[in-house]
Amino acid sequence: MSYNLLKGKRGIIFGALDENSIAWKTAERVHEEGGKFVLTNAPIAMRMGQINALAEKTGSEIIPADATNLEDLENLVTKSVEILGGKLDFVLHSIGMSVNVRKGKAYTDQNYDWTQKGWDVSAVSFHKTMQTLYKNDAMSEWGSIVALTYMAAQRVFPDYNDMADNKAYLESIARSFGYFFGKEKKVRVNTISQSPTPTTAGQGVKGFDGFINYAEKMSPLGNATALDCANYTVTLFSDLTKRVTLQNLYNDGGFSNVGVSQEVIDGFSTDK
Amino acid sequence: MSYNLLKGKRGIIFGALDENSIAWKTAERVHEEGGKFVLTNAPIAMRMGQINALAEKTGSEIIPADATNLEDLENLVTKSVEILGGKLDFVLHSIGMSVNVRKGKAYTDQNYDWTQKGWDVSAVSFHKTMQTLYKNDAMSEWGSIVALTYMAAQRVFPDYNDMADNKAYLESIARSFGYFFGKEKKVRVNTISQSPTPTTAGQGVKGFDGFINYAEKMSPLGNATALDCANYTVTLFSDLTKRVTLQNLYNDGGFSNVGVSQEVIDGFSTDK
Amino acid sequence: MSYNLLKGKRGIIFGALDENSIAWKTAERVHEEGGKFVLTNAPIAMRMGQINALAEKTGSEIIPADATNLEDLENLVTKSVEILGGKLDFVLHSIGMSVNVRKGKAYTDQNYDWTQKGWDVSAVSFHKTMQTLYKNDAMSEWGSIVALTYMAAQRVFPDYNDMADNKAYLESIARSFGYFFGKEKKVRVNTISQSPTPTTAGQGVKGFDGFINYAEKMSPLGNATALDCANYTVTLFSDLTKRVTLQNLYNDGGFSNVGVSQEVIDGFSTDK
Amino acid sequence: MSYNLLKGKRGIIFGALDENSIAWKTAERVHEEGGKFVLTNAPIAMRMGQINALAEKTGSEIIPADATNLEDLENLVTKSVEILGGKLDFVLHSIGMSVNVRKGKAYTDQNYDWTQKGWDVSAVSFHKTMQTLYKNDAMSEWGSIVALTYMAAQRVFPDYNDMADNKAYLESIARSFGYFFGKEKKVRVNTISQSPTPTTAGQGVKGFDGFINYAEKMSPLGNATALDCANYTVTLFSDLTKRVTLQNLYNDGGFSNVGVSQEVIDGFSTDK
Repeated sequence: MSYNLLKGKRGIIFGALDENSIAWKTAERVHEEGGKFVLTNAPIAMRMGQINALAEKTGSEIIPADATNLEDLENLVTKSVEILGGKLDFVLHSIGMSVNVRKGKAYTDQNYDWTQKGWDVSAVSFHKTMQTLYKNDAMSEWGSIVALTYMAAQRVFPDYNDMADNKAYLESIARSFGYFFGKEKKVRVNTISQSPTPTTAGQGVKGFDGFINYAEKMSPLGNATALDCANYTVTLFSDLTKRVTLQNLYNDGGFSNVGVSQEVIDGFSTDK
Repeated sequence: MSYNLLKGKRGIIFGALDENSIAWKTAERVHEEGGKFVLTNAPIAMRMGQINALAEKTGSEIIPADATNLEDLENLVTKSVEILGGKLDFVLHSIGMSVNVRKGKAYTDQNYDWTQKGWDVSAVSFHKTMQTLYKNDAMSEWGSIVALTYMAAQRVFPDYNDMADNKAYLESIARSFGYFFGKEKKVRVNTISQSPTPTTAGQGVKGFDGFINYAEKMSPLGNATALDCANYTVTLFSDLTKRVTLQNLYNDGGFSNVGVSQEVIDGFSTDK
Repeated sequence: MSYNLLKGKRGIIFGALDENSIAWKTAERVHEEGGKFVLTNAPIAMRMGQINALAEKTGSEIIPADATNLEDLENLVTKSVEILGGKLDFVLHSIGMSVNVRKGKAYTDQNYDWTQKGWDVSAVSFHKTMQTLYKNDAMSEWGSIVALTYMAAQRVFPDYNDMADNKAYLESIARSFGYFFGKEKKVRVNTISQSPTPTTAGQGVKGFDGFINYAEKMSPLGNATALDCANYTVTLFSDLTKRVTLQNLYNDGGFSNVGVSQEVIDGFSTDK
Repeated sequence: MSYNLLKGKRGIIFGALDENSIAWKTAERVHEEGGKFVLTNAPIAMRMGQINALAEKTGSEIIPADATNLEDLENLVTKSVEILGGKLDFVLHSIGMSVNVRKGKAYTDQNYDWTQKGWDVSAVSFHKTMQTLYKNDAMSEWGSIVALTYMAAQRVFPDYNDMADNKAYLESIARSFGYFFGKEKKVRVNTISQSPTPTTAGQGVKGFDGFINYAEKMSPLGNATALDCANYTVTLFSDLTKRVTLQNLYNDGGFSNVGVSQEVIDGFSTDK
């Protein structure tokens, strides 16, 4: 499927780890739609991933960057503009990691050094990316910036731990920075709040399978896939959504606005 | 328990049917806190209920009124002011009924005459009540009006049927009328979004037991009871919440901000 | 601009009055994107409008229908499927009217017959349309239904009067019906909450110019135009947003998530 | 005014700086309502403030604590339980500070060391406080924890800078920790989102007077004062709100649900 929706557009895509990644699918779809981009990921993530295959497939260059490091980001942004031959039209931020989750720390028993590390990687990195883009005047007018988030920012999912707070901070950054980026440079900033998605990163999380199963049953249209998210992101990068900004957009088969589904409630009936 | 929070305050309480009603508990608590009030209900509901016992217990008079009928409301308001000896400080609207639900019509197969009847009884009655109060200048400054609602106004609960839409309309009325009532008369208007509560009215609804069970498991503090709601309403009628207005306030043990609880998700794990 | 996003898709577009209408622009854009459709409007609106010119331009047929009348809707849906040669992929509901507004009645002084008329036209018509589509099994799998709404459903805009409550009801219908339409037929249902737009319908509303001016100053990207809305609707009709459902989507230059803008606050400084 | 609402209750109040502080007013009101408490503040804030006068007036002890320091918090919690003679029933968190704001850094030009400092003081301190209470099992069943926040967590107020993101994180902590505190210990956790209040801390912020003026005009009941906030907090500490948890509660004269007020829009009319 291709509509040439992003023909001539340039951008940066963060966070493609392997073919299960949302960022990977997005890179593929953006490529199909005619967009050109630089791929980036943390050096450590790149060693684990297969990003070279993606770069080859999409004719992209890779610039490693630790998204918490301002020098890395400066290098990424200036090089990307150079390589792509002009200012950027789109940026995808798909980065998240909680040390507390990885190390099995309960939310009520946080190691605050780890809390800070996760906050820096998962949330502040989005501010640092935008601040670098903003200061370098690296975005074209009517450009579009998207970050991926999760509904735990609004409602409690117990296993999501401190990532919930990080996502709340991330979404707030989208609004706060989106205001200034809109006013000053006519750039839009939004977040997509995606269904739980069976990525490699999510694989290891305790209870993740049960949660995907639950979300599937709660969602009138079922869970949105990584490809669904890639497609939705394409529309947000396109010229068809120019006045959509500061929004948190649910791509979740409807879960976010369901209190309970028939399938789920059926399990709680006392008169069975 | 009594703190004299409502000493000297006058009001009207709609919708006390029997001792399971939230309005019944509220009347009892308001009485304990020193408030005086007129009880009202639809003539048909009064025949089924035991409202006389409540009136006796709380030293209240009863004025029957069909809350969709402007003449009845006019009579109710003017008589209440007369009986209570002054303008009103509080009003509780606890009225709701869907003919489509009663008759077992699916949401996708509505009888629109019934839809309109339910909308008029459940939602417009709140506007009519406030318009009557407003035109008669019957509310004291810093008075407080509360209507009961349910979270189905925000998220789908399949069995809630057209009551969801009625509650959305009701909550909108609270904001819209609350704006003018605030500006012109310094009166506050709020809705309480209550846990599913085993009232007599709810008793007959299909799947209601299962739903209460589910809500109990989703809510960190368990479902709020009718007494909890009465207590919360007392705080909103008191002088301690003078600048709280146009709000929809959840009294639900936390359900509204829980995506999923551990107990609920445990049933969906695939690796059990 | 055309991407063939809607090639081969069939639908119905309600509410095109004249070239300022959002529905008019949407019809033009859907046509450019390869979609085929039937145009419809109330007989009375059609007499005032220039819908024939639009039909000619887009190669569409016109079927008049009073959207509050079930027989008219039945005729519209069955004829449309016949004319277009298959089930429908998209429907746009762009209908709204308040008699209280037209007649200059204050929100605190409603004529309730008019309130009901406005509710039926502006909100229930959306339910009636979907119920007719649903019962006739007239929507294709992964079809998309969109209704236009306004932020007054969430927050008070004093001049918006009872349209605020109607829009709240409309948005609730989108969620409620969207649940069943999703589960049973894999159809998505969303609302777009649009910037105030200088349509012919809006022209006459008291204070509308001031409000557009204010919204422009509050919105980081300025007010979304009718064309912006048409473009956004195209993305929601396309296959790129398949798992987006039950959502209320703001197309408003960011207004909805701005508390106050610098331009607006500057007028309130005391130290100027 | 006193109702003995908090008779026999014990707690900790953070953040009373001087008599303009919300925490100061809250301490006074809690005292009047029969509650006993320990006052705490950062050592540096105590040097600037007049907290001794408050301690004397309310018969309270003062335990200095840097709320970002776990040892200080451990000392505060264990000593408070000792001094007050039992587990705690209430805690007020009223702490916030942005170095970026103080130093005049624009939101688009953050110093990230300062960003982190502000985040730690304004938001993580709330988690640290609750984690310390939780681990020490220092809260009574049905105890109540409240933190103060601001609507900038939901919508952009340009001058609020990174405090907006901090407040979003703080509110997320309230939900996340509230879930576990509710489930395990039956403790409720809420935030109050307060009108802009002319405290000493706010005094120095650029454009603060203009903002208070604007908020006053937007709010149907006018801005909530520090005393209003103290009163509202008393209700949340009382036994009348036992099932209210995980909520963000606006105490703002209705501002949060107003799109625009007549007074504000009047300034934007073009036909004056």
